[in-house]
Amino acid sequence: MPKNPALARLPGFRDFPPEDLAVRSHIFRAWREACRRYGFQEYDGPPLEPLDLYTEKSGEEIVGQLYAFRDRGGRHVALRPEMTPSLARILAERAQALPKPIRWFSIPQLFRYERQQRGRLREHFQWNADIVGEAGVGADAEVVALAVDALRILGLGPQDFRVRVSHRQLVSALLLGSGVAPDKLPVAFGVVDKLERESRQRSLDRLRQECGLGVSEAEAVLQLFESSDLERAAEVHGEDPEVAGALADLRSLRQVLDEMGMGPFVEFDLRIVRGLAYYTGMVFELFDRKGELRAVCGGGRYDRLLELVGGEPLPAVGFGMGDVVLGELLAERNLIPSYRRAVDLFVAAVSEAQRELLHRIVAAQRAAGKSVVYPLRHQPLRRQLATAAAEGAERAVLLGPGEVERGVAKVRDMATGREVEVPLQALLAGKGGDGDGNA
Amino acid sequence: MPKNPALARLPGFRDFPPEDLAVRSHIFRAWREACRRYGFQEYDGPPLEPLDLYTEKSGEEIVGQLYAFRDRGGRHVALRPEMTPSLARILAERAQALPKPIRWFSIPQLFRYERQQRGRLREHFQWNADIVGEAGVGADAEVVALAVDALRILGLGPQDFRVRVSHRQLVSALLLGSGVAPDKLPVAFGVVDKLERESRQRSLDRLRQECGLGVSEAEAVLQLFESSDLERAAEVHGEDPEVAGALADLRSLRQVLDEMGMGPFVEFDLRIVRGLAYYTGMVFELFDRKGELRAVCGGGRYDRLLELVGGEPLPAVGFGMGDVVLGELLAERNLIPSYRRAVDLFVAAVSEAQRELLHRIVAAQRAAGKSVVYPLRHQPLRRQLATAAAEGAERAVLLGPGEVERGVAKVRDMATGREVEVPLQALLAGKGGDGDGNA
Repeated sequence: MPKNPALARLPGFRDFPPEDLAVRSHIFRAWREACRRYGFQEYDGPPLEPLDLYTEKSGEEIVGQLYAFRDRGGRHVALRPEMTPSLARILAERAQALPKPIRWFSIPQLFRYERQQRGRLREHFQWNADIVGEAGVGADAEVVALAVDALRILGLGPQDFRVRVSHRQLVSALLLGSGVAPDKLPVAFGVVDKLERESRQRSLDRLRQECGLGVSEAEAVLQLFESSDLERAAEVHGEDPEVAGALADLRSLRQVLDEMGMGPFVEFDLRIVRGLAYYTGMVFELFDRKGELRAVCGGGRYDRLLELVGGEPLPAVGFGMGDVVLGELLAERNLIPSYRRAVDLFVAAVSEAQRELLHRIVAAQRAAGKSVVYPLRHQPLRRQLATAAAEGAERAVLLGPGEVERGVAKVRDMATGREVEVPLQALLAGKGGDGDGNA
Repeated sequence: MPKNPALARLPGFRDFPPEDLAVRSHIFRAWREACRRYGFQEYDGPPLEPLDLYTEKSGEEIVGQLYAFRDRGGRHVALRPEMTPSLARILAERAQALPKPIRWFSIPQLFRYERQQRGRLREHFQWNADIVGEAGVGADAEVVALAVDALRILGLGPQDFRVRVSHRQLVSALLLGSGVAPDKLPVAFGVVDKLERESRQRSLDRLRQECGLGVSEAEAVLQLFESSDLERAAEVHGEDPEVAGALADLRSLRQVLDEMGMGPFVEFDLRIVRGLAYYTGMVFELFDRKGELRAVCGGGRYDRLLELVGGEPLPAVGFGMGDVVLGELLAERNLIPSYRRAVDLFVAAVSEAQRELLHRIVAAQRAAGKSVVYPLRHQPLRRQLATAAAEGAERAVLLGPGEVERGVAKVRDMATGREVEVPLQALLAGKGGDGDGNA
């Protein structure tokens, strides 16, 4: 803690000293590598946006947690709590000119003033990936596969996580077909969303009291949503064309993912609702297999969002994956590479007389792409070698008067202690730093 | 523009669609590559900090331009306008435990509510690099060399930019030795800072009226600061130990940079002052050689900053380099790589019958590290090939019924149109995507 507590880091925010930044970079690298393999292009938007961008279409939960204020020009502004409205705004200006489908991703830092609890943060980095301009199941499958592949790149397998897939229109049709009145649908979705956290009895009561169902109707709804496959939905409601259409879509989705080898990761689960109001079709969440953590990732199809910012209607499907829960999952599975400092070369001079030579070799080796450190002021050789070890140098170039006179330097392998002599000419030409005396 | 202007991007903020993000990434990559070669480690801090972190020690200019507000918990907070106070806070907690010197860098986005003019922005990304815990000239030289090398990695040479170096203590001693009273030093620094922008007569007048100098004293000061080398300072004031010490430091700095091959980039120029109040020794700014743009980079030695946040006294030297002016310089020199979309493979199926095979090949090639796109719904082959070209695919895998029956697929080089047959087994094993039929 700084001595002046008024200068302390704000609660819910993180510093990233190098050892923590390395973890963040490890995760970002996997996200970007997955996007590269899937042909997604990176974009970004401003972290500060007009407040209206969020109040017009975000869920109430988000609006109540905004970092909102008036800027010096009197504008109502907010730190971005989610990326999709910015994406919608950016695409509203340019989507018409872009070939479809648009495959874009971003890694914004997002901000929400949540009540402080269990180490919950007020900022996180969230990988957003979206396919815009393609309404079919092929795009749904592609974004689910992308999310899965990023985690595979990080070393996670089907024993570590699963994707739970549902479908907004399917759930709507099933609820309506079970006797829920259209005006009770939002409440019924709320009950479905809480099925895993509330007791069965409480859910039954709510379906009866808040959604107007009879005892047997409420029981039938619960059985439908407790089923881990879609067979029961097909049996009971399969003749409803809405249900049949959505089921066909989900089966196609499953088939594509099976063909891509993603089958072991994917489950259907009609209890997945997603908090945000804007999803219109397939929705999914990605959880650790043990079910101990919050969702690692959530997304789905949202075909109407772009209209809300004045853009042309464009189908879209995508997801957001945060760095915090993912980091917890990786840590639990020992999949975070241990942090160690590393440079290619440490260049040491026995006396001040070799200082000019040292500077010339350092510059030459760096120009050749090596990472090089050296003592910024003269020190005894023993001290320099200790620093070389602390910096994680792979090799040390030792400039001693005897060798320099003969036109060579010792290059020491810091792991084995083995030393070879390398001509100064090679070192000054940016070579020989890997201990190859003939380089 | 979105149809609803209330949703438009805030003035002074940038969107980064892929073609613009590619430029940003190009610059960030060069910054990170230079840091890698110099053994610097990346860190980051929160973009939102306690307001006091800036009001306590930043220049007045910054405080008047803060994005400051009260959060939902009543805290006075601000979007970070500069990185150094966060660095000081982070180091105050942990510098004692770290081996010195500490070589850290960061690429934060910074925010200032500047009056809108000439396309000036209210946010930019600024590369910050600092060496902490080493008071000698060696560290000064190292950060200047780092800044120069990043620009060299981007393709800029001595014909494109120069580093102008000065020294706070030297300028103080010269002004005091020229007859400026200690309490007039800040005003005199202000005159020096404006020498290049104000007329010679105006500067003379100010030195006389605001700094209390006589005619000949004022003239002598101007001649001192108009000189492009340090010879005149040495001649006239060389016996002042403060002057002699600072001159010796600057000569050592120059020598190290010469030995590193940076000589052609470096000039001494006592008119470089730096706006911020906290510099204590060497200061520098990096400008385009034509002098048409604002400073690309500025920095220097600031040995007292860490004390201000309650840390141990630690010498420090560093700089900040923004992405905006640098981007203008690169654009002017045609050093921004032209943007083009590119993927390794496009996989096309002649009919729906090859769809399963297509999905399996796509997954296998991606697992092998290739970037692969394919039509998310079935399309005529001609349309698919047009998409492959638009995506910048290097090769296209064509799955036709005849070839598939024979266990092969055509792989077309999209640039030459040349086609080879590759066994499906190879493609399904993640090989053969580079058109090597025997892979």
